Amino acid sequence: MRVLGVDPGLTRCGLGVVDGRLGRARMVAVGVVRTPSDGEAGERLVYLEREVDGWLARYAPDVVAVERVFADSNVTNVMSTAHATAVALLTATKRGIPVVFHTPTEVKAAVTGSGRADKAQVTAMVTRILGLEVAPRPADAADALALAICHAWRGAQTARLEALAKQARA
Amino acid sequence: MRVLGVDPGLTRCGLGVVDGRLGRARMVAVGVVRTPSDGEAGERLVYLEREVDGWLARYAPDVVAVERVFADSNVTNVMSTAHATAVALLTATKRGIPVVFHTPTEVKAAVTGSGRADKAQVTAMVTRILGLEVAPRPADAADALALAICHAWRGAQTARLEALAKQARA
Repeated sequence: MRVLGVDPGLTRCGLGVVDGRLGRARMVAVGVVRTPSDGEAGERLVYLEREVDGWLARYAPDVVAVERVFADSNVTNVMSTAHATAVALLTATKRGIPVVFHTPTEVKAAVTGSGRADKAQVTAMVTRILGLEVAPRPADAADALALAICHAWRGAQTARLEALAKQARA
Repeated sequence: MRVLGVDPGLTRCGLGVVDGRLGRARMVAVGVVRTPSDGEAGERLVYLEREVDGWLARYAPDVVAVERVFADSNVTNVMSTAHATAVALLTATKRGIPVVFHTPTEVKAAVTGSGRADKAQVTAMVTRILGLEVAPRPADAADALALAICHAWRGAQTARLEALAKQARA
């Protein structure tokens, strides 16, 4: 299963493509889309949309996994994150690619075993799982890869449980 | 000046087009785009985008005025409002139409004279200003018209002050 992980943001939007199956994951691509924080809001969204759409076209993921963002003490952050999330949702849906959401806790638990892992631990585990020689930078890029791994593994686990249930019924 | 007012939302998105100049305003169109609250998030955004883009094409506003939303006790509401706002921003920017934001307080003050007016007062003043025989329903539609009036009048006022300043300098 090929997953595009998206750590949504306007100033920095992390993107990471992973081919994964149960317990295994291979990095296909990683990057960060940046838009100038003093840029016009609409122009930033148009630029981000074009970049995300380019990634969808180039890597043809089976699914897009986006970080589900909750409240933040900083309202401006929440809004720009929500706008970036909307762009990812819109672009993927137009290409007929399903979008799933995972919470930061789910992502951390999937890659480190603990839902309370810190950023450094997540980056370290992503680097190890993918067998990378250097850790992905910035943190948004590592988070996007972690999201993709999380979804690929959860999806594989679900498929395996379904297969076992089917066997048991047969 | 022709303004498309947008009261952003996914369940109901109010749209109102007004031709306005200082102290005057004429309604061109009003409506509400609804998407099913049990629908898939991406599909709802794609539908809303198509509808908003249709309004932009049909009425060719000079500017789009969107309600600036702040925090809400309900995080889900904030997120879906932010997603709808992103759709309006993206669609208008692609058509080269500027987008401006006004807070609810600014809008209320512009149409009723008080930033603390309630929904009923806003609807009543919108109905009177536009010389409508019946009040626009639902409240989202009236709010979209109020936004459009607010921006048309503020814009006209700014233009008038600039003209006076120019005269004074001449």
